[in-house]
Amino acid sequence: MRILVVNGPNLNFLGKREPQLYGSLTLDDIEKMLSRAFPDVTFEFYQSNIEGVLVEHVQKAMSGVFHGVLLNAGAYSQTSYALRDAVAMLKVPVIEVHLTNVYAREEFRHRSVIAPVCRGVVAGFGAQSYLLAAKALMGLPS
Amino acid sequence: MRILVVNGPNLNFLGKREPQLYGSLTLDDIEKMLSRAFPDVTFEFYQSNIEGVLVEHVQKAMSGVFHGVLLNAGAYSQTSYALRDAVAMLKVPVIEVHLTNVYAREEFRHRSVIAPVCRGVVAGFGAQSYLLAAKALMGLPS
Amino acid sequence: MRILVVNGPNLNFLGKREPQLYGSLTLDDIEKMLSRAFPDVTFEFYQSNIEGVLVEHVQKAMSGVFHGVLLNAGAYSQTSYALRDAVAMLKVPVIEVHLTNVYAREEFRHRSVIAPVCRGVVAGFGAQSYLLAAKALMGLPS
Amino acid sequence: MRILVVNGPNLNFLGKREPQLYGSLTLDDIEKMLSRAFPDVTFEFYQSNIEGVLVEHVQKAMSGVFHGVLLNAGAYSQTSYALRDAVAMLKVPVIEVHLTNVYAREEFRHRSVIAPVCRGVVAGFGAQSYLLAAKALMGLPS
Amino acid sequence: MRILVVNGPNLNFLGKREPQLYGSLTLDDIEKMLSRAFPDVTFEFYQSNIEGVLVEHVQKAMSGVFHGVLLNAGAYSQTSYALRDAVAMLKVPVIEVHLTNVYAREEFRHRSVIAPVCRGVVAGFGAQSYLLAAKALMGLPS
Amino acid sequence: MRILVVNGPNLNFLGKREPQLYGSLTLDDIEKMLSRAFPDVTFEFYQSNIEGVLVEHVQKAMSGVFHGVLLNAGAYSQTSYALRDAVAMLKVPVIEVHLTNVYAREEFRHRSVIAPVCRGVVAGFGAQSYLLAAKALMGLPS
Amino acid sequence: MRILVVNGPNLNFLGKREPQLYGSLTLDDIEKMLSRAFPDVTFEFYQSNIEGVLVEHVQKAMSGVFHGVLLNAGAYSQTSYALRDAVAMLKVPVIEVHLTNVYAREEFRHRSVIAPVCRGVVAGFGAQSYLLAAKALMGLPS
Amino acid sequence: MRILVVNGPNLNFLGKREPQLYGSLTLDDIEKMLSRAFPDVTFEFYQSNIEGVLVEHVQKAMSGVFHGVLLNAGAYSQTSYALRDAVAMLKVPVIEVHLTNVYAREEFRHRSVIAPVCRGVVAGFGAQSYLLAAKALMGLPS
Amino acid sequence: MRILVVNGPNLNFLGKREPQLYGSLTLDDIEKMLSRAFPDVTFEFYQSNIEGVLVEHVQKAMSGVFHGVLLNAGAYSQTSYALRDAVAMLKVPVIEVHLTNVYAREEFRHRSVIAPVCRGVVAGFGAQSYLLAAKALMGLPS
Amino acid sequence: MRILVVNGPNLNFLGKREPQLYGSLTLDDIEKMLSRAFPDVTFEFYQSNIEGVLVEHVQKAMSGVFHGVLLNAGAYSQTSYALRDAVAMLKVPVIEVHLTNVYAREEFRHRSVIAPVCRGVVAGFGAQSYLLAAKALMGLPS
Amino acid sequence: MRILVVNGPNLNFLGKREPQLYGSLTLDDIEKMLSRAFPDVTFEFYQSNIEGVLVEHVQKAMSGVFHGVLLNAGAYSQTSYALRDAVAMLKVPVIEVHLTNVYAREEFRHRSVIAPVCRGVVAGFGAQSYLLAAKALMGLPS
Amino acid sequence: MRILVVNGPNLNFLGKREPQLYGSLTLDDIEKMLSRAFPDVTFEFYQSNIEGVLVEHVQKAMSGVFHGVLLNAGAYSQTSYALRDAVAMLKVPVIEVHLTNVYAREEFRHRSVIAPVCRGVVAGFGAQSYLLAAKALMGLPS
Repeated sequence: MRILVVNGPNLNFLGKREPQLYGSLTLDDIEKMLSRAFPDVTFEFYQSNIEGVLVEHVQKAMSGVFHGVLLNAGAYSQTSYALRDAVAMLKVPVIEVHLTNVYAREEFRHRSVIAPVCRGVVAGFGAQSYLLAAKALMGLPS
Repeated sequence: MRILVVNGPNLNFLGKREPQLYGSLTLDDIEKMLSRAFPDVTFEFYQSNIEGVLVEHVQKAMSGVFHGVLLNAGAYSQTSYALRDAVAMLKVPVIEVHLTNVYAREEFRHRSVIAPVCRGVVAGFGAQSYLLAAKALMGLPS
Repeated sequence: MRILVVNGPNLNFLGKREPQLYGSLTLDDIEKMLSRAFPDVTFEFYQSNIEGVLVEHVQKAMSGVFHGVLLNAGAYSQTSYALRDAVAMLKVPVIEVHLTNVYAREEFRHRSVIAPVCRGVVAGFGAQSYLLAAKALMGLPS
Repeated sequence: MRILVVNGPNLNFLGKREPQLYGSLTLDDIEKMLSRAFPDVTFEFYQSNIEGVLVEHVQKAMSGVFHGVLLNAGAYSQTSYALRDAVAMLKVPVIEVHLTNVYAREEFRHRSVIAPVCRGVVAGFGAQSYLLAAKALMGLPS
Repeated sequence: MRILVVNGPNLNFLGKREPQLYGSLTLDDIEKMLSRAFPDVTFEFYQSNIEGVLVEHVQKAMSGVFHGVLLNAGAYSQTSYALRDAVAMLKVPVIEVHLTNVYAREEFRHRSVIAPVCRGVVAGFGAQSYLLAAKALMGLPS
Repeated sequence: MRILVVNGPNLNFLGKREPQLYGSLTLDDIEKMLSRAFPDVTFEFYQSNIEGVLVEHVQKAMSGVFHGVLLNAGAYSQTSYALRDAVAMLKVPVIEVHLTNVYAREEFRHRSVIAPVCRGVVAGFGAQSYLLAAKALMGLPS
Repeated sequence: MRILVVNGPNLNFLGKREPQLYGSLTLDDIEKMLSRAFPDVTFEFYQSNIEGVLVEHVQKAMSGVFHGVLLNAGAYSQTSYALRDAVAMLKVPVIEVHLTNVYAREEFRHRSVIAPVCRGVVAGFGAQSYLLAAKALMGLPS
Repeated sequence: MRILVVNGPNLNFLGKREPQLYGSLTLDDIEKMLSRAFPDVTFEFYQSNIEGVLVEHVQKAMSGVFHGVLLNAGAYSQTSYALRDAVAMLKVPVIEVHLTNVYAREEFRHRSVIAPVCRGVVAGFGAQSYLLAAKALMGLPS
Repeated sequence: MRILVVNGPNLNFLGKREPQLYGSLTLDDIEKMLSRAFPDVTFEFYQSNIEGVLVEHVQKAMSGVFHGVLLNAGAYSQTSYALRDAVAMLKVPVIEVHLTNVYAREEFRHRSVIAPVCRGVVAGFGAQSYLLAAKALMGLPS
Repeated sequence: MRILVVNGPNLNFLGKREPQLYGSLTLDDIEKMLSRAFPDVTFEFYQSNIEGVLVEHVQKAMSGVFHGVLLNAGAYSQTSYALRDAVAMLKVPVIEVHLTNVYAREEFRHRSVIAPVCRGVVAGFGAQSYLLAAKALMGLPS
Repeated sequence: MRILVVNGPNLNFLGKREPQLYGSLTLDDIEKMLSRAFPDVTFEFYQSNIEGVLVEHVQKAMSGVFHGVLLNAGAYSQTSYALRDAVAMLKVPVIEVHLTNVYAREEFRHRSVIAPVCRGVVAGFGAQSYLLAAKALMGLPS
Repeated sequence: MRILVVNGPNLNFLGKREPQLYGSLTLDDIEKMLSRAFPDVTFEFYQSNIEGVLVEHVQKAMSGVFHGVLLNAGAYSQTSYALRDAVAMLKVPVIEVHLTNVYAREEFRHRSVIAPVCRGVVAGFGAQSYLLAAKALMGLPS
């Protein structure tokens, strides 16, 4: 089983970026944590700060080789209709992931334009959000 | 470990209520599924259609005997500041749970007045949402 | 033929409550008026001031023994998504009834969150609104 | 007893227009149905697609010969302050009638600028809406 | 002289609930403080977490035995049109009471749907708010 | 000098229509009053309840024979972009006239979509509004 | 092949009306231009300033003899739900046409209530907009 | 007969201030023009840039010696509830005057918080606006 | 103990101004009533119609000689961020006072920009509001 | 004659992406279709999923070698002020192109921030939209 | 060279007012700092808490003796259309100055109604904001 | 001392792009002007049209070698929460710079989502804005 994990802007600084808010694990740490937790699953991890490159990472799931997608679009969640359109054209399920409870932060983070075309949302559990979302994905038919 | 699980309006008809949307498992089935999945945890399940009674179920966690709360407030998520206040006075973490991806449904379901005082949100995975949220809760310090 | 009639908050004071606005008939009077007008129909009348209890009264129509529901949710019409969800899961038709022309009163009464899942609306004719709605219900296939 | 019945835009195509939505009866059928149901009442039926002509049809009730008015303003309900002003100057009661449950359709149909100056509203029962509204009108003092 | 005092959701935890915000006195303490301050007045104290039960507590003042009502509707102040309707049908004055200065807290607490049908508002003085409101009530004709 | 006077919906009932609000003079009376007050001016008076016919009356001023236009568009002031476009294409000045102070009435009457393309506005003086507006028009270069 | 072309308010002054904005061709010129460009097509041209008459022109396409409709509703595009309803009941495609780029003009012109029930929109090319829309229509199955 | 004329901020620079917009007459010129036009009327002219001083000028009409008030509140028209309250407590009529057609200028000038408590509005005719408003005032009972 | 009492626009006419709304006591009467009720307290009373002078009256409490401030900002409550800033820089508590229940009046009176920086609010009890607020102030630590 | 054709996000999957919505032609097919239809014109086709790269493609038209630009900005149409600024600095005309009738889809697609600086818009005709827009461009002076 | 410096409400307490926010320099200190930094420039400093007096200070620049104006309107920036009108009638440039970064504070401080008629804005650098704005002014043609 | 200067979309055309609005200096000219004005400071200049690349340029200041950042995000100022997040994670101050007075242009340019996390804003002085902002930055502790 293969799962595509796409990470958005500023997540390249995860671990160093406001750790009291986002935690001290890096994206690499999360990737390893996922692989350890689900040894039978191949996780393909991508990160980009560029909206259009993220669109292309999401488009990879058009290939049919992935069981589903974990998408932490970061600050693009609030505005990127391009990412929404990319998600909408997939046939496999996409789960929106957030490290923090975005609903407890600034008003502008409460709305995701991507969530309406995802299968579900997991938010607020730090690095654990990825684990839970991966688990959720495995429980779904591709 | 004890976990309080509070379920809101119309969830007493779960399984019979629009099963194509909410699934065919009943609340009892979910309770059993949780107990099977986490045999070391005691789950106390409550359901009520009455907002104020739900407030009182949430208030039970003031007692200090629960590690945390899973709260599926159903349609009260959108309007119940009373539930929000009950959650806000707890010291243990509360996780908002939804069977469906509320962000993919009617506009009025996109906003939860409870989420800002919760630790996190899990939505969209049917009965699995409870399992994932329970797992998330266990990963948090009480 | 059985018809379920569910009445919301403050309707227990009907007749005594601002009679220049709501008329001087009590709920009991209306129930009798209905029975006299439709002797072949059994009307089951419920009133509650509690939103969740109203939800449960509406849920009674899941039993299959009712031809339909007359619902005067009073002030809960404006805010109760819980009642909306209860109505939405029924297979029999529900008609929203109002004694007064709510569209001619305060702005907040112009919007009903329940109306979108009802079959129709009758408003503004005092106790007559119930008679007309009952008549409407009988003209519909259950 | 005379009742004025005023019908707005596109109702000249009733029966042929999206029958799954509006039903297969024509305006003529409805007129006959009304006359049969209330043989002692004279119904004067008007239809126009022109807002200003509808204003003039409503103004007919200034003459004092009508007991009241049934007004299905169709799509002008949402915007016609001119019709509202015509209704407001009448002394006899006006009832707003809709074939469909407008509150269950597009957002823009939920608001009527005419309803605040009417006596009541009947919506959602197809051709029956006219029958019920006529009955309501007869129960009111002119 | 009799005064009805109605207290809303989560006030059963007053004293234990976020004391830095709401103070350390319980509802019982406030009741005693009122009785000591106004020995000639009988205060009837009610608390409920259930909106509809609060409606019924307010309806008690229809009996004519009370000089007026002190109403701390807590979080229902923001949304309960049912409570508003109950207050509106009373002939004796009702005063809205808040322990905290709700206008200095979250935006959603700034608007009360009950205040427009009350005689006045006292907010921000902790348990003292009740004393001041009781004093205000006594200065008004019942 | 010729002045075009265009009157909108329901003004054919002026004098009979809510006289406490609109006064007891008819349109004819106003026309005569204008002619007496300004004997050297020819006033061409038009009234229609039909928006599009009013558009055509306003278009008459494209002919070049009028010094200006007095326009009381009644309830079409709030919504008629068609009238606005007709006014905008004229080279002679147009003055918006209202019998009542529309800003002291319902919210929806406060906004005119025609005013932004007029030269000025006179509102609130009953039949006098026409006299004042005519006087204003004569003081302007055509 | 027959195409119905319906033109809204103030277009009877096309060519004379603000030519720097709308161009110097008249409606007749456009009709001739269309006939020359598509000699095998019969264009039926209608213009009215009256919303309800435009509704009736659009209703002509219920007859089945037209391949489709070009509709330049002018200022009624922004407000006419009656025209929208007429378009919605047609089975042949309707194309919304504008001489000017309405999105580059006043805010109120950016929204068309008709566009959501049309097949497509062509705006901004002066008289050419009609030619392009006709061409588009011919490329569509009726 | 005495008429109070109150002029708001920046009108002390009238004549020198953007004359292409406001004209080249000064306030003094307007005062003289009024006196010449109505030799039997005493006009008391006040100007202030200070909102509270304008409130006091308007309060002068509480004395009973004035037939009415002409009020050009300038930019305070949009925001001054204090002026509104001062106008509201007068028994003599107040007419809102504007030199320019405020409805044809920036959006924020379209709304006056004072107009709803005035008798009428005259706007858009330069210095003539004062003459017309004075004439209007004389036609009203004090 | 010294208490500063600052009164805003149009309160110089208290007693004469719409007495059915604001009562027949003057500001002087209220000052005397306060002194009689609290003989040990020195009340310094100020009134101004000028926003900036009110700012300066509030600034007096920067001197440290006052225990607190009673502020009835009248119509400036709705708009004066300058008064808000003056209140915000004080260290002693400020209580917002209103004679009328502003929440029961026009929509624009429901919002106070000053309340969020005050300690509390007393509104709706006529001259009594001052007495209650003074009492509240004395119960607070300066 | 050279025409620049710039295509936005997810259009690299045209033909494979929700073909029931967007059609089964690829961008390459459209390019060929254009070249066949207008053999005398050179079309330079670009696609990118990256907003900033699209900005740069549009900037190519600053070179002076293009007669105009066809711009299908896809989901960036709703939000990209950067693209708007790039279009605004061009001297040659730009036409906004959409495959689908965006006005008949989700609310967020109805508004384009680019349209106000374009010459015109063609939407809703699938691949034909490009042909029509190209034709429109040729009819305009560069 | 002469520069007019106008300071708004509560700036008379600068240095003593919330120094952690506004710094500990007084207006006098800033005036001296400016004179030291630009010895060849005469700065005329004014402060008032009264909106209308600030209007008059700004009007001083109509005299032609000033090269430009630095305007820190404090809390009047958000609401004073009177100040805006005063600025708009000047021919010399005006720069809006703020000590704090108003965009990082409460929502209501983010909008200035004066900024649209100023030449530019400098905000967030404490007393330095004045120095920078003075420097900016000198670089502009008067 | 090192200062990072990050420039957003379309600034690569500065000097050639609408020079009447943005001036005729290029980014290179500005860089040289800065270096000449502050010979002891090293300015690192970056420009990109790609939002994500700008994020990465801002992230460079995480390295600790820069004293601060000048950020002219161009049209991304209005929408880029990704840039905001990048700025928010820096410890050195960031100043928002604009060539034009964005508050005097289209409504959409009045709001910056980046400003709330910057230290201050300088806007409206053309190339001088950079000089002033650099000067401001040097006056701040890094």
